[in-house]
Amino acid sequence: MPWNAFVKEVAQMSKTKVGIINVTGYAGVELARLLSQHPEVELTSVTGRSTAGKKLGEVFPHLASIDLTIKAELGEVSLAFSAMPHRESAKEVIPLVSRNIKVVDISADFRLKDASEYLSWYGSTHPAPQLLKQAVYGLPELYRHQVTSAQLVANPGCYPTGAILALAPAVKAGIITPEIIIDSKTGVSGAGRTLNLLTHFAEANEDVTAYALDGHRHLPEIIQELTLLSPQQSPAITFVPHLIPMTRGILTTGYAPLAPGKVSINKKGKDELLQLYRDFYQGEPFISIVGVPPHTKYTWGSNTCFIHPTIDLRTGRLIVVSCIDNLIKGAAGQAIQNMNLMLGLPETTGLGASAIYP
Amino acid sequence: MPWNAFVKEVAQMSKTKVGIINVTGYAGVELARLLSQHPEVELTSVTGRSTAGKKLGEVFPHLASIDLTIKAELGEVSLAFSAMPHRESAKEVIPLVSRNIKVVDISADFRLKDASEYLSWYGSTHPAPQLLKQAVYGLPELYRHQVTSAQLVANPGCYPTGAILALAPAVKAGIITPEIIIDSKTGVSGAGRTLNLLTHFAEANEDVTAYALDGHRHLPEIIQELTLLSPQQSPAITFVPHLIPMTRGILTTGYAPLAPGKVSINKKGKDELLQLYRDFYQGEPFISIVGVPPHTKYTWGSNTCFIHPTIDLRTGRLIVVSCIDNLIKGAAGQAIQNMNLMLGLPETTGLGASAIYP
Amino acid sequence: MPWNAFVKEVAQMSKTKVGIINVTGYAGVELARLLSQHPEVELTSVTGRSTAGKKLGEVFPHLASIDLTIKAELGEVSLAFSAMPHRESAKEVIPLVSRNIKVVDISADFRLKDASEYLSWYGSTHPAPQLLKQAVYGLPELYRHQVTSAQLVANPGCYPTGAILALAPAVKAGIITPEIIIDSKTGVSGAGRTLNLLTHFAEANEDVTAYALDGHRHLPEIIQELTLLSPQQSPAITFVPHLIPMTRGILTTGYAPLAPGKVSINKKGKDELLQLYRDFYQGEPFISIVGVPPHTKYTWGSNTCFIHPTIDLRTGRLIVVSCIDNLIKGAAGQAIQNMNLMLGLPETTGLGASAIYP
Amino acid sequence: MPWNAFVKEVAQMSKTKVGIINVTGYAGVELARLLSQHPEVELTSVTGRSTAGKKLGEVFPHLASIDLTIKAELGEVSLAFSAMPHRESAKEVIPLVSRNIKVVDISADFRLKDASEYLSWYGSTHPAPQLLKQAVYGLPELYRHQVTSAQLVANPGCYPTGAILALAPAVKAGIITPEIIIDSKTGVSGAGRTLNLLTHFAEANEDVTAYALDGHRHLPEIIQELTLLSPQQSPAITFVPHLIPMTRGILTTGYAPLAPGKVSINKKGKDELLQLYRDFYQGEPFISIVGVPPHTKYTWGSNTCFIHPTIDLRTGRLIVVSCIDNLIKGAAGQAIQNMNLMLGLPETTGLGASAIYP
Repeated sequence: MPWNAFVKEVAQMSKTKVGIINVTGYAGVELARLLSQHPEVELTSVTGRSTAGKKLGEVFPHLASIDLTIKAELGEVSLAFSAMPHRESAKEVIPLVSRNIKVVDISADFRLKDASEYLSWYGSTHPAPQLLKQAVYGLPELYRHQVTSAQLVANPGCYPTGAILALAPAVKAGIITPEIIIDSKTGVSGAGRTLNLLTHFAEANEDVTAYALDGHRHLPEIIQELTLLSPQQSPAITFVPHLIPMTRGILTTGYAPLAPGKVSINKKGKDELLQLYRDFYQGEPFISIVGVPPHTKYTWGSNTCFIHPTIDLRTGRLIVVSCIDNLIKGAAGQAIQNMNLMLGLPETTGLGASAIYP
Repeated sequence: MPWNAFVKEVAQMSKTKVGIINVTGYAGVELARLLSQHPEVELTSVTGRSTAGKKLGEVFPHLASIDLTIKAELGEVSLAFSAMPHRESAKEVIPLVSRNIKVVDISADFRLKDASEYLSWYGSTHPAPQLLKQAVYGLPELYRHQVTSAQLVANPGCYPTGAILALAPAVKAGIITPEIIIDSKTGVSGAGRTLNLLTHFAEANEDVTAYALDGHRHLPEIIQELTLLSPQQSPAITFVPHLIPMTRGILTTGYAPLAPGKVSINKKGKDELLQLYRDFYQGEPFISIVGVPPHTKYTWGSNTCFIHPTIDLRTGRLIVVSCIDNLIKGAAGQAIQNMNLMLGLPETTGLGASAIYP
Repeated sequence: MPWNAFVKEVAQMSKTKVGIINVTGYAGVELARLLSQHPEVELTSVTGRSTAGKKLGEVFPHLASIDLTIKAELGEVSLAFSAMPHRESAKEVIPLVSRNIKVVDISADFRLKDASEYLSWYGSTHPAPQLLKQAVYGLPELYRHQVTSAQLVANPGCYPTGAILALAPAVKAGIITPEIIIDSKTGVSGAGRTLNLLTHFAEANEDVTAYALDGHRHLPEIIQELTLLSPQQSPAITFVPHLIPMTRGILTTGYAPLAPGKVSINKKGKDELLQLYRDFYQGEPFISIVGVPPHTKYTWGSNTCFIHPTIDLRTGRLIVVSCIDNLIKGAAGQAIQNMNLMLGLPETTGLGASAIYP
Repeated sequence: MPWNAFVKEVAQMSKTKVGIINVTGYAGVELARLLSQHPEVELTSVTGRSTAGKKLGEVFPHLASIDLTIKAELGEVSLAFSAMPHRESAKEVIPLVSRNIKVVDISADFRLKDASEYLSWYGSTHPAPQLLKQAVYGLPELYRHQVTSAQLVANPGCYPTGAILALAPAVKAGIITPEIIIDSKTGVSGAGRTLNLLTHFAEANEDVTAYALDGHRHLPEIIQELTLLSPQQSPAITFVPHLIPMTRGILTTGYAPLAPGKVSINKKGKDELLQLYRDFYQGEPFISIVGVPPHTKYTWGSNTCFIHPTIDLRTGRLIVVSCIDNLIKGAAGQAIQNMNLMLGLPETTGLGASAIYP
């Protein structure tokens, strides 16, 4: 064996082995792409149901360079990502946790701390309530310390990621009263790869619609986290998601009244607000506070969340706009950010890609 | 001359002659299309600046069947549409009004009743403050009677049309307190035909952004009209427009707290709310109150505004969603609706087209 | 009864009753829209399978003004459109024909004159070979006379409509040798309303692909018709369709060598070619021969086919580009054009709409 | 200085310094993104005209992590990319070459070997005909050896890259007769960042058009290269580009008659053809020969060219489809591939990213 190949093989051997349960959805395939380029872990096992037995490159020709066969069962790994639908995901996760395998769960199963909330929003009793306490809500900007030592991380939903990051500084600082409106606009990939008339091209193209006006399943997540940031006053949150004709990206616009006397309602107050956000996210590698309204295009393929807080001077309201790539910071990228922390790697490892523009 | 041709010619002679000032923008060309198919008026004159001297079908090959040459000056007409930019429009309108020619002004010049508001939002003194009093705000659902006898109608902006129609019933009935958030999502044609990096395909495609967070010029229009509907309590309105990657359509989502004791915060209250909206718009030919969230696709090419009012039961807030085609009900269609009223024609004449789907 | 209502009722009574079998696909719903605005026929019956029992406006809110309930079975009509899938369509058509009801079949069942071709391309024996002889291929620009007296019209496929209209003048005039390449680009609605990963928004958006390289089912139709136009030399046609990320429209680019000595390979020859096309389509209400490359946008919502023939002076080849709206001239509009002829109405009745731009 | 920082600094010092002339176009900004992530070179200088003096991150917020100020003049570098428009590019390149700085020219200035062709297609005499001989056409799959020792590389056009790679194996092997049709479909970013009505969102969205039917400037490049591959028979090439509503990607469909007796016109022949292509591109890191028609989506953000060759069995024609990302393999990625060769680096350095899907 030549020296180079030997060095490479040793390096490969020392890498942490990771796997993906249900690689064939959009979050799964994005995990596969990002992990295959990650310098410190090795993707060694991917599972799928209808595609079991096929090479990954048969199903996704652009990933032909990843030499893996999709299996029905996960192989031996030190850390697993579950990209299964909710409820089914918990069933996969339980045995892994009991075998001391670290897990990042992309599904909603371990996000809500209160099993009765799970019942009410997901229509079935929680499959593993005993794990809820140990599961960490995987928003590193709020729970970095806990994620670092976690065995089970619940990766946040795409909407909650954008909404919580946008509002956390204001809620935490108590500069707003808790009458919060969250209006989100998502690209269609957020609805997944399962066929649906709503996401049929001829229906979704050249169209915009609001949906889930009776309550979207991501709402309790947002309420839970914003309440934890401001336990003294529970927020009254209205959240309306909208489907817009693009593939990737979520732009979230948040509105709330500024609390009296906290921020000046003038140009200077706007600057103070910007500074408050910059201070809150000081040193965060994946948060960019900007002085002008951001575009989701700034995030295409990147793990960065852009946030622009400002004041509506006429009404004394906070307006805050955030942009993320729903499949990266809103799913696979954040999951790898969590993995990095769980494995003691630098948080940005494998996540340095800038957005691809235009 | 054969009898048929004679009958046709007489019919044509009896039609009202109408013209379009600045036919080459998106509102202008849409007016030309709709007027050419209108059974009771005849489009006899169209103007344009850089294109003067060309046949309409040279500039817009799909309109080759309209046999008109674009001129620098308007010919003799009984009613004119001005699709000039603001300020320039007023200059065109003044002499027409003094010659007793009826005018529907698509620009913003005569929408604001208060010339000082015009100065503050458009940055120049109003070119014809003497006409502001007689100009009628051309939202027929609110001002039908006044439009009927008007000589000068100020056609509403595209955002205000969707926003005011969505909120008018609730404001008028006093069922909300006036802390109103209006979050609008527009197709790119709303930004017009003038070239701009923001509307360059590679920039606008696969992107969404918020803009005009310091105040969009359509805001004072919305404030003016909602205040007139509820003079006792002036509304505090935050309006944020968003640009989304589609050609046509505006979806507006409005949010406001329900006033205590006015509507039940339950399923029954939702039905009452729906009924309140249906009663308010009883008999309106271009308003469709629907029980589920509408799609802008329902309005593609039609003059209908779809409105869905509902209650966020968790927070006791009104959520109301409206959809229009920004170039029809939001511009050219509404202008013709106004023209029909001004000429004593049935309001729906020439505006019967259903949306084209998908 | 007031006089007006009486006159209207009499007019309505005298209208021909027509129906649509399978209204819920894209061709069916477009037929419903166009027929509801047609002044000389009355749409009285629409059928659907999974939606039977619902009001048309429940399934398609933008068509709420058409007061019809979707039924499982067709009611009494004088003329029926079948928008069923192939094979199933023939089964619906056979009994109608035997009851002397006129039929326009949107499916492929009666387009191919040779039942063995049907077997070879559609994989099953033809359900009604006895009807093939009487069925007329419903391209009015080629078969107007036959359509006028037909009881059963086979509405052409969307690709064949654009391709045959583009090439017919050149083939008929014998100015090309029959080595024909046809490269078509279609909007996604051409693939219908049935869910499919290929037409899932996140897959089809920001993508283009070629498909059916082994032979698309529309190819035998194109071969049949171009051969009939030039029986002495059977054409060798390669046809490759491409799926592009837009909802409506087909652009077809045809290539063929110019036959020696027929057309000058210079600027003058280009003009002669344009004139040859203009002469061929002289008086055709739905054909527009243009001197510059057309856009599918010129056809959005209209029944017009734009055609631009030119010469590649470097190679002496014909290049011809055609644009249609795949759901109008490529389906529902052409079906109504055929209906008009079959009922003795002016061919353009109800089809006068210009394209909606932008 | 801590040890880590020292090591990093030394590593940085040893990197080759490179610069970009005119960073603000789409090719330039894509070069900046890719070079900033390249492990073996350091981007130290970027120029721009109207944006000189601004930080790169001000103009392109997603590139804020690249800490560079746009300058009017290029700084000291060992290798420069010129992304200037043609003619202006040559003027920038001449002095660099005379100072022995290596150059990859993204413009068209040094692609055509024959200065009279340049005059005929670009309408002006060539600014530096003396450099044409030494300039290497930078398609590494054909000219790897020459690129390796080149001082000046002419980066191929986007269309020629897709078209030449698709046809080269067939032309070189002599299996086709040279009557070649090339029908390309490009995303709108290919038209650049300069504003133009054709690329205005509302015009380009939901539209497809053919353009440059009299001859596109990329045609002589294609002719030159395919002729060099088969000098004994000069090809007669018709090339028609089409603009389709997506941001990135080019799909090219090539057609040519198979030469008699070279390939069997049957299933076996198809396999032989596939093998011929696989052999031709044996070991090429950025070519993927596939057995089914590829999607441009497979290439989004990657430097790979997917090629699918097949036979139209009915007519005995070659059909070959290629897909590239027009801004990567069609511009910036290929430029870096050339740079890697010129600097003696492994060819794939910094170009390992898989496509981002969906």
